[in-house]
Amino acid sequence: MIENKPSRTELSDLGEFGLINAIAKNIKLKHSSSIRGIGDDAAVVNNAGRLTIISTDMLLENIHFDLSYIPLKHLGYKAVTVNLSDIYAMNAIPKQILVSLAFSNRFSLEAIEELYEGISLACDVYGIDLIGGDTSSTVHGLIISVTAIGEAEKEDLVYRDGAKETDLICVTGDLGAAFIGLQLLEREKRIFLDNPSIQPDLGGNDYILERQLKPEAQQEIIRILKQIGVKPTSMIDISDGLSSELFHICQQSNVGCTIYEDKIPIDPQTYALAQEFNLDPTVCALSGGEDYELLFTIAISDYEKVRTVMDVSLIGHVNHVSEGKNLISSSGSSVELKAQGWNAFPKE
Amino acid sequence: MIENKPSRTELSDLGEFGLINAIAKNIKLKHSSSIRGIGDDAAVVNNAGRLTIISTDMLLENIHFDLSYIPLKHLGYKAVTVNLSDIYAMNAIPKQILVSLAFSNRFSLEAIEELYEGISLACDVYGIDLIGGDTSSTVHGLIISVTAIGEAEKEDLVYRDGAKETDLICVTGDLGAAFIGLQLLEREKRIFLDNPSIQPDLGGNDYILERQLKPEAQQEIIRILKQIGVKPTSMIDISDGLSSELFHICQQSNVGCTIYEDKIPIDPQTYALAQEFNLDPTVCALSGGEDYELLFTIAISDYEKVRTVMDVSLIGHVNHVSEGKNLISSSGSSVELKAQGWNAFPKE
Repeated sequence: MIENKPSRTELSDLGEFGLINAIAKNIKLKHSSSIRGIGDDAAVVNNAGRLTIISTDMLLENIHFDLSYIPLKHLGYKAVTVNLSDIYAMNAIPKQILVSLAFSNRFSLEAIEELYEGISLACDVYGIDLIGGDTSSTVHGLIISVTAIGEAEKEDLVYRDGAKETDLICVTGDLGAAFIGLQLLEREKRIFLDNPSIQPDLGGNDYILERQLKPEAQQEIIRILKQIGVKPTSMIDISDGLSSELFHICQQSNVGCTIYEDKIPIDPQTYALAQEFNLDPTVCALSGGEDYELLFTIAISDYEKVRTVMDVSLIGHVNHVSEGKNLISSSGSSVELKAQGWNAFPKE
Repeated sequence: MIENKPSRTELSDLGEFGLINAIAKNIKLKHSSSIRGIGDDAAVVNNAGRLTIISTDMLLENIHFDLSYIPLKHLGYKAVTVNLSDIYAMNAIPKQILVSLAFSNRFSLEAIEELYEGISLACDVYGIDLIGGDTSSTVHGLIISVTAIGEAEKEDLVYRDGAKETDLICVTGDLGAAFIGLQLLEREKRIFLDNPSIQPDLGGNDYILERQLKPEAQQEIIRILKQIGVKPTSMIDISDGLSSELFHICQQSNVGCTIYEDKIPIDPQTYALAQEFNLDPTVCALSGGEDYELLFTIAISDYEKVRTVMDVSLIGHVNHVSEGKNLISSSGSSVELKAQGWNAFPKE
């Protein structure tokens, strides 16, 4: 039926964000309780003054994960933490999740229980209740859809559109490790497939493997910022890579930015392994994705408070929109930042 | 990896509800705001006294729908209404939805827009805001995951566990039509596949086709019950068939039931076509599923108020649990009711 339509726009030409824009342009919100809809890490609903923050994500086998190297327990844990990351990115506190699963008869009860062990562990670590979901079958493969629900006072919420000129750009943790972890896992998988008698050589790379297989959401920084009395002007979680997320903040806040290559936090293990793979560590940090760190902007007047916070790097500042989005390389030259985040609809 | 586990329980032996029980038994709720978790049509979260009701469902191509006969616009509409049905089944009012989509490069922008036209239409008809979601790609096929959010005052909520002995059992609309509609569509598809020059013969069956392809959620009855001052003692939506839903109410309320075959509402078109397919119309109503009507129990003292409500049938009454679950056939004999709802994990 769809093949007969007179015009056909390929989604690979449009990209994920083009698609989201095409969907969002026809949507008008009807309820005053629908505070914020499509276009941020999570949606916001008002309930008698208190805000409910909701985010949803779908993970598909062989698109988002490969069961030949991620254990089911880790997968369950990761499916939860990547959703919680979206709630924290609103400066809200996640409280509940719903998990929908679909899987083929390749999976036994024990396999599904292993997956739920990881889900339960994440619920315990982050203080979350699993309150519902749906289960069904697939012809092939495993699908996990998680909806996370959080809460916040109205004055605490941080969106993507509040960055102002002269604000400072901060990022938690370090970047690029999850991407390098994936390269390592894929290399060892190829070696194993070519010669099953060779055991994977993953030793000494625990940190980057954990960043890929069992990422954490940044609950601690949300607590600390509140404690030191700093409210970011904008915030987003880094799921698609630093560049892509900076683009979202700049576009929605109508500003430009300048970041400094030598300020981008990269773990030494990531750096060394990137070079082993002939990859530029900065490019891995800018475009690798799956870091689940928080990227946020703060008023320059908050600098003294934030500079003492462990695990936060100041990587640049916000410009006027006319100045564009710039990366000052380690050699001192300025290059235009490109959004090279993961495209959900690759061309074949 | 999962194949190496020492013990393996097949999910086809356990069934969907066995799996849900296996998952639910390890879950302890941590937050006082998590009012109700797994085990009802939707979850309930308390926000400063006002309750948020959340439900989620996943629809998969070739498991839950077949694009060779459901137009994408209808599919989008149905994906929303089946979720809203769960919110109404809590006696709550849906307000927002989030929609996650995953699809392959078989789908163009125009196809996805057609799907969203149906989603938007349902949002308009039911007064709902689409506030978020997620999009990603699949290797094959289309996946739709919808999360619906509703609200209710605490005293208005109706669960599955409140049915009491002597309560009356009511059902809205008529049953079995969606199942017969599916049989008709599948028959015409087989004929078409055998001989593509033969056009599908679907004429005169608009009602049952619409019940399958574009089902509605029962918003009106929720409004009417409130208006006439009747609060059901228990309620559930009929997605898996009358039998299966009665079993849920009886099990969770710890009661038995007696229903009368000749009181089960079946549309004449459903009846005639069931006979054409050599199917027992009562069995279609009991086990067909996808009706999205509401099954509820009321106190006998509310009988006079409810009997005048259009489109509600009184089909039986609640017993002591020791009396079991019974169907009184049209000939007057009593047979034990069997839960033959749709099993999400069929054996191959």
